[in-house]
Amino acid sequence: MTDKTIPRVVIVGAGFGGLNAARALAKADVQITVIDRKNFHTFQPLLYQVATAGLSPGEIAAPIRSIFRAHKNVEVLMAEVTGFDIAGRMVETPEGKIAYDYLIVAAGASHAYFGHDDWEPYAPGLKTVEDALEIRRRVLLAFELAERQTAAGDTSAPLNFVVVGGGPTGVELAGTLAEICRHALTHEFRSIDPARTHIVLIEGGPRVLAAYPDDLSRSALEQLNRLGVEVRTSTTVTQIEAGAVYAGSTRLPATVVLWAAGVAASPLGKKIGAPTDRAGRVLVQPDLSVPGHPELFVIGDLAALKDEKGKMLPGVAPVAIQQGRFVAKLISRELSNARAASVSHLSRPAFHYWDKGSLATIGRAAAVADFGKIHISGFMAWLAWLFVHIFFLIGFRNRILVFIQWAWSYFTYERGARLITGSTYLPGWTVDQRASSRSTDHASQEIHAASRK
Amino acid sequence: MTDKTIPRVVIVGAGFGGLNAARALAKADVQITVIDRKNFHTFQPLLYQVATAGLSPGEIAAPIRSIFRAHKNVEVLMAEVTGFDIAGRMVETPEGKIAYDYLIVAAGASHAYFGHDDWEPYAPGLKTVEDALEIRRRVLLAFELAERQTAAGDTSAPLNFVVVGGGPTGVELAGTLAEICRHALTHEFRSIDPARTHIVLIEGGPRVLAAYPDDLSRSALEQLNRLGVEVRTSTTVTQIEAGAVYAGSTRLPATVVLWAAGVAASPLGKKIGAPTDRAGRVLVQPDLSVPGHPELFVIGDLAALKDEKGKMLPGVAPVAIQQGRFVAKLISRELSNARAASVSHLSRPAFHYWDKGSLATIGRAAAVADFGKIHISGFMAWLAWLFVHIFFLIGFRNRILVFIQWAWSYFTYERGARLITGSTYLPGWTVDQRASSRSTDHASQEIHAASRK
Repeated sequence: MTDKTIPRVVIVGAGFGGLNAARALAKADVQITVIDRKNFHTFQPLLYQVATAGLSPGEIAAPIRSIFRAHKNVEVLMAEVTGFDIAGRMVETPEGKIAYDYLIVAAGASHAYFGHDDWEPYAPGLKTVEDALEIRRRVLLAFELAERQTAAGDTSAPLNFVVVGGGPTGVELAGTLAEICRHALTHEFRSIDPARTHIVLIEGGPRVLAAYPDDLSRSALEQLNRLGVEVRTSTTVTQIEAGAVYAGSTRLPATVVLWAAGVAASPLGKKIGAPTDRAGRVLVQPDLSVPGHPELFVIGDLAALKDEKGKMLPGVAPVAIQQGRFVAKLISRELSNARAASVSHLSRPAFHYWDKGSLATIGRAAAVADFGKIHISGFMAWLAWLFVHIFFLIGFRNRILVFIQWAWSYFTYERGARLITGSTYLPGWTVDQRASSRSTDHASQEIHAASRK
Repeated sequence: MTDKTIPRVVIVGAGFGGLNAARALAKADVQITVIDRKNFHTFQPLLYQVATAGLSPGEIAAPIRSIFRAHKNVEVLMAEVTGFDIAGRMVETPEGKIAYDYLIVAAGASHAYFGHDDWEPYAPGLKTVEDALEIRRRVLLAFELAERQTAAGDTSAPLNFVVVGGGPTGVELAGTLAEICRHALTHEFRSIDPARTHIVLIEGGPRVLAAYPDDLSRSALEQLNRLGVEVRTSTTVTQIEAGAVYAGSTRLPATVVLWAAGVAASPLGKKIGAPTDRAGRVLVQPDLSVPGHPELFVIGDLAALKDEKGKMLPGVAPVAIQQGRFVAKLISRELSNARAASVSHLSRPAFHYWDKGSLATIGRAAAVADFGKIHISGFMAWLAWLFVHIFFLIGFRNRILVFIQWAWSYFTYERGARLITGSTYLPGWTVDQRASSRSTDHASQEIHAASRK
C-alpha cells in the first residue's frame, strides 16, 4: 500500500479542520495518514446536548476510520503526537516517527483556566465527550441528591447552577439547563421543585455573545431572562471552590459550576517552534503555512490569522472546514504541478474566509442568527440552527437519530439520555455523601418521619 | 403527599422485578418508594449491544422517575440501601431509614469470580452500563493498538479475544465480536486484518447454552463455528492474568478477556437475615415472602424458588417480571381486604411461572428459540428475538432508536457507537503504552520505514 514515490501528507487531528483536509485530499494521488488521540470525530457544536442529556455521545461522534473506509490511500492512527522533527520532516509518536512530505497540524484547542488550574475539579469545561459526560453526571446528580436530602426532611438542599462565560457555549449551557429545570424534570420529583433551580450566567465583559452584533446580544439576554437565567455581565470570577463561586467579593452558592470562559490552543502549537500568540496559537502566513516551512500548515483553532480587515478569524467550525479544504486544494495543485514541471511556493494564494453567518442557540425555540445585514432571533433563528446542525453532522445514521430525538424532545419536552454513570460524589454537596455513609448521624433519622406525625 | 393512613410499599431495586412490581402497584391506594443505586433502569438483555458498540447506553436505559412521572404516589430515590431493620420495618440508607408496611427486595445479581476476584481487572463482566462501556473500550482499543503497532513494523500485535462462559451472555458476546471482526471493521484498517482475529469461547460444561434443549445447544455451537468462533467445552479456566487465560495448563494468549461465567446474588440478600442458597439467593416461600415475614418479599434474581417440577427458576427477565406483578397483585388484594375485614396471610396463592419460551441470540441472523415443543434456529429465531426485545424495551423513544439502528446495522453491517472513551491503557498489551511513551526505544524507529526501503 505504502510507496515512497507517492508523497505522504500527515494530518494531526481529526476535528473539523483535519477531517475536511483529509476528505478533500483523499481523491488526490497522495498517501494520507490521519493521527488523532481519539478513534472518533466529535461534532463539537452538539457537545452541549450530550452535557444536558439530550443526545448520547454515539449520536454526535463518528469513528474516524469509518469516514475514510472507502479511501484506501487514507490510513488512520489513534495515537498521541508527542512532538515534531521539523528539519527531518517527521511527526513523533510513542511508537515511532512518521515521515511526511506535507504536514497539516489541526490539533485544536482546549478549555483553559487562565492560571487557575485548581478550579478545574469544581468547574468542568466542555471540549470533549468525556467533559460532556462529567457535566451531565453532575447536573443530574445534583437533582437526585437534593430530592434525597429533602425527602429526609432537610429542606436546605441547594440547587444553584453557575455557568462561567457568556460566549456561545455558556449561553447554550445556561439556556438548556433552564429549559430542563422548567420542563423536562417537572412532575418527576416529589420533594423538590426543579423549576425553582437558580441558574446564573457570569460574563466578564459588558454583554453576552460579544462576537455578535449588539442587537442580537441584547436579544440573547432577553431570551435567557425569559428562560429564567440570571445574567451577570461585567462580573469577574475571583475564586471557585467546592460549592461556591466568588464574583468579586460576593459568594455565590453553586451546586454545579460549569466553565465556558477560556480557550487555549493545543500545546502542540508551541512544539512546532514557530512564533505563537498569547493563546498559544501559531502565527501562520496568509497561505496557512508556517514561516520558512512551505510544507507545514497549521489550521483551525490552532492557527492565528487575521482577515482582510485585520480582525482575528474566530475559532469556529466554518473557519476550520474552509482552511482544511483550502490547504488540501493547495497541496493537490502543487503535487500535480510538481509532476508536470517545477514547484513554486511563491505563487500561493492567500486563504480567504467566507463568512456565511453565525448561529447561536439559547434553548428550546430560542436562538440568534447573524447573516451580515440580516439579524434573526427566536424561533426562526432556532429552526435555522437545527437545520444547519443536522445538515453538517457526520454520518447519515447520526442525522436520522438526532432528528428523531429532537423532534421527540420538542413535542414531549423529554431528555432521552439522562444517565448518571460513574461516581456518585458531587464536590461541595452540603451533606457529604462519603461522610454520611460512614456516620450514623443521618442514618438514624427517619425519612418521611415529619409527615407521619 | 405522604400520609400515615395510606400504607407504604418500599421497593429496593428498579430492574425488571422492582419496576414491574411498582407499575402494577401504582394504581392501588398505596404510597410507593422505589430505591435504586442508579437513576435509570437498564434493559439488561441489550447490554451486550452496548458492549459491542451497536447501541448507546442512553438507548437501552430509561430514567426511573420518568417512568413514574404520571404516578404521584410513586416516589423515586437514588440511594444505596445499606441494610434492613426487619423487626422495626425499616430500610436503611445513608440519609436515614425508610419505614414500610410492605417491602419488596429486588436487588438482583452481579457477576462473580468464584473466589478469584483478582481476575476482575483482566476479565470484566457484563452487568451494568459501566461494565458494557469498559468492554467496548477494551475491544475497540485492541484493534487500534494492533493497527498502530503493525504500522510501526512490528507484526507481532496479538488479536485474541477470549470469552469465558458459554451461557446466553457469553454466546452473544462471542458471536457479536466475530460478526464485528468479519463485517463491521473490514476495509477500515490498512495494516491489520480484523477478520483474522481469533475468538475463543470457553465453557466449563459439556455444551454451550446448557439451559436449552440439546438440539438447540448443538445448533448454537454450529452457528458460532460458522461465525468463526472457536468453542472449547468441558474446559476449566484455572488462571487469568494480563494478556492470557489458562485453560487447564494450556496458556491462551488473550488481548481482551470477557467474563460471562458466574453470577452471584446481591449482598443485600444476606442482610435480610433469612436463609440463602450457595449463590446468596434468599430461599423464599411459594408466595415469594420470606419465612416468618409475610410483609417482606424477595423477587427476581435475588430469590431462590423451585417450580412444580422441583427445578430452580432461572435468573431471567420474564421470571422477575411475573414475580413483580404477582407480588403487586397480592399486596393490592390484601390491602383491599384489610379495609373491608381482617387480613389473612394464610390464604395466599403460590407463584407460578408461565414459561413462554426462551430466546438466545448469537449474531447477525443467528439465534435459537425454545418454545417448548417448537425449537427454532437461525434467521427466524433471530427475527423472533428482535421482535421480543424491541417490544419489551422501556420507552417508545428507545424502541424507535433501537429499531433504526438495527435496521441500519443489518443493511450496512456498521456499528454506530464505536467510541473509545476514558483510558487508553489495555492490560497486558505487548508494547506497554505507558512504558513506551517514556522510553525512546520505539519513539526513535520510523513508522512505514519498511515500505520505504
